[in-house]
Amino acid sequence: MPTFQTVRGMRDLLDQEAQALTGIISKARETALLYGYREVITPVVESFELLNAKAGEEIRKRMFIFKDLGDRNVALRPEFTASIARITTTALKNEPKPLRLFSAGSVYRYDEPQRGRFREFWQSNFELIGSNRPEADAEILLLTDSFLKSLGLRGFAFKLGHMGVLRGILGEEDMDEKTQNAIFQRMDKKEYQEAFKLAPTERCRRVLEGLLQLRSDDCFETVEKIKCYVAGNERARVAVENLDDILKLVVANGCPVKVVEPGFARGLEYYTGMIFEVYTPELDIALGGGGRYDKLIELFGGEPTPAVGCAHGIDRVALALQAQENKVGDEREKRVLVFAVNDALKVEALKIAQSLRQSGVIVEFEVMGRRMAKALEDADKRRVDYAVIVGERELKEDAVMLRNLAKREQNVVPVKELAEKINS
Amino acid sequence: MPTFQTVRGMRDLLDQEAQALTGIISKARETALLYGYREVITPVVESFELLNAKAGEEIRKRMFIFKDLGDRNVALRPEFTASIARITTTALKNEPKPLRLFSAGSVYRYDEPQRGRFREFWQSNFELIGSNRPEADAEILLLTDSFLKSLGLRGFAFKLGHMGVLRGILGEEDMDEKTQNAIFQRMDKKEYQEAFKLAPTERCRRVLEGLLQLRSDDCFETVEKIKCYVAGNERARVAVENLDDILKLVVANGCPVKVVEPGFARGLEYYTGMIFEVYTPELDIALGGGGRYDKLIELFGGEPTPAVGCAHGIDRVALALQAQENKVGDEREKRVLVFAVNDALKVEALKIAQSLRQSGVIVEFEVMGRRMAKALEDADKRRVDYAVIVGERELKEDAVMLRNLAKREQNVVPVKELAEKINS
Repeated sequence: MPTFQTVRGMRDLLDQEAQALTGIISKARETALLYGYREVITPVVESFELLNAKAGEEIRKRMFIFKDLGDRNVALRPEFTASIARITTTALKNEPKPLRLFSAGSVYRYDEPQRGRFREFWQSNFELIGSNRPEADAEILLLTDSFLKSLGLRGFAFKLGHMGVLRGILGEEDMDEKTQNAIFQRMDKKEYQEAFKLAPTERCRRVLEGLLQLRSDDCFETVEKIKCYVAGNERARVAVENLDDILKLVVANGCPVKVVEPGFARGLEYYTGMIFEVYTPELDIALGGGGRYDKLIELFGGEPTPAVGCAHGIDRVALALQAQENKVGDEREKRVLVFAVNDALKVEALKIAQSLRQSGVIVEFEVMGRRMAKALEDADKRRVDYAVIVGERELKEDAVMLRNLAKREQNVVPVKELAEKINS
Repeated sequence: MPTFQTVRGMRDLLDQEAQALTGIISKARETALLYGYREVITPVVESFELLNAKAGEEIRKRMFIFKDLGDRNVALRPEFTASIARITTTALKNEPKPLRLFSAGSVYRYDEPQRGRFREFWQSNFELIGSNRPEADAEILLLTDSFLKSLGLRGFAFKLGHMGVLRGILGEEDMDEKTQNAIFQRMDKKEYQEAFKLAPTERCRRVLEGLLQLRSDDCFETVEKIKCYVAGNERARVAVENLDDILKLVVANGCPVKVVEPGFARGLEYYTGMIFEVYTPELDIALGGGGRYDKLIELFGGEPTPAVGCAHGIDRVALALQAQENKVGDEREKRVLVFAVNDALKVEALKIAQSLRQSGVIVEFEVMGRRMAKALEDADKRRVDYAVIVGERELKEDAVMLRNLAKREQNVVPVKELAEKINS
């Protein structure tokens, strides 16, 4: 008889890994609540046409695409933004702006599996739709900061950039969007020489190269350098001032922005303004990122609507926490085994188990029909704290034997004092 | 420009629907914890071979099956049990029994969409693996009871049966398992005449028909009637005594068993013992169900291992709660709008917003750059409770204006007293 395995790139999460995942999602949900975001739950299966409307070639090549039994072209969502754009232009079309929307769940990309990268992975996703102002961009950065801090993650830092600066420079050459995007994709992969080759003029190439040299240990200094560098380019100047405004709002609020990178581009074609990624020293891939995409909603048939958003890789956050020995979600509580000395006492023992659970005590009821010595030995191995032994004699006095398994001590305790004794 | 829709049978959940879903799953998770169940998170995409090893024809016809980019035959899970069996026979193979495993997530079946039935739906799933004793069956029933009670659901009731009684009767005729399962499938659909036609002898048909007539308003009376009826059939007799034992354990613990139905069969082929479903008056489909399947783990290449489990339809539980006007997950908390009187005050206003969030207050920060009157009017419409108005004059005294939007009252409040004032 064969045993079965998970499909390549897919995983089971057990014990601490499962607790970490649900713990992180629950912190993301708390953050969403505190910032006034509404949760929306969208399907894993979406129409291929929808997902294709936005995904660049990069993502499209790696989607799980198939036909359903009704011969529809469908795919497993590779991220949340297309679904959120769909909702914004349909169910929420007539709601006043801003819309603040939160989602969390699994997404699917056919990547080569490696550390921190799986074909099914988990994201939390935040979108703020309807505002073009720097405080909206700042909100997305600050909630990412709050989320990671609420998990107790240490040492993470933000990298910021602005697509408006780059688009301003390339736009001067009347370069079409497609070529611009091809350049950005190469810059995103740090293939700068390849990117420069696509520049239409020698001057443009030099301007780009010069931009990439601008650096400083201080973010605000970098911004000032960019300001000087692009002074003559109106679109780039407006962009860098916007970046400055955002930066002031978030840095004053304790958001650890480590670097402003003038040549920072994100591969997805729809970014128009501020972009960011957040890193920890433990991983060489970003924990999350996002930015402003003011033209996205139009792409899905809506009115032109400014928007800014971000996604966090839950699995990567889990890896970073694990590297910091931070056991999120593992709030160890007292565990109790309830054991009936004989079959005739099972009903009474179950009643005691139920009332302990109602008081919030974690109870395993003995279901293996083992002898007491064996059951207690096994419970002790699994780090159960107490055994409640339900015997004839004690029960006549409405009491049970409570055994502290670690200390190997036991006392007769009245049933009604049991929960209190265990929790004390 | 087209707008996009969800794929047929798929849904978006917004606002109260999304809150209900996450609220119900979180109660299922709490129940799992209290009963000592470990959460396991398994992939949505499993190998077709795995899912096919267990699924009957019924489910197989309705699976989302496709090939991934590596040409693997895969499918979206139609339920959790196959994945749990896979883990039991691989990663958890050497762990001591019993295993108590909990999962919650979305599953996929290509059914005709109707009220309470979608192609992507949500389940919570509990499996207790390794025990053949009635207290294990009782545990699965009691945790279903605890879960639904923890949601405040009223008026739900259990229906119980036992496959051992039916298999005992059909086994007397040396009937092969395949014919037995064909009969059970018809009985599950209440196509009793069709089922009887498959009985190999007239005597067998009469015994089955007679069994179905056994009824009583009292569960224990029904059990006694079945005991008399099958007295000469050893296998059926053992089965009904097992049902009696289980019933005693759960009824004494407040589990609302309304009916024991001797002709109750569940379509899935692997049930061997106690089976159950749970209903509310508001819906004509079961909220959940399960039973004992002592031969399932073998089917996945494991040692013969007794097991009992159940699954709950989260969407159906949500419908039942909605019908009872029970807004699970909607713990309405105070909401606050933070508004800066001018752009120069935005940094300070954001700091106040952040410190309120740290005190657990839900804060929307004004990101639309609206005039105050407009922003407050909009906040009032959306039932925001307070506006915190950050102005130059008050801020000099480390204070802000706190406006109660419903009462149309406002007072100057020191920043450090703000959270307390709002929460009081």
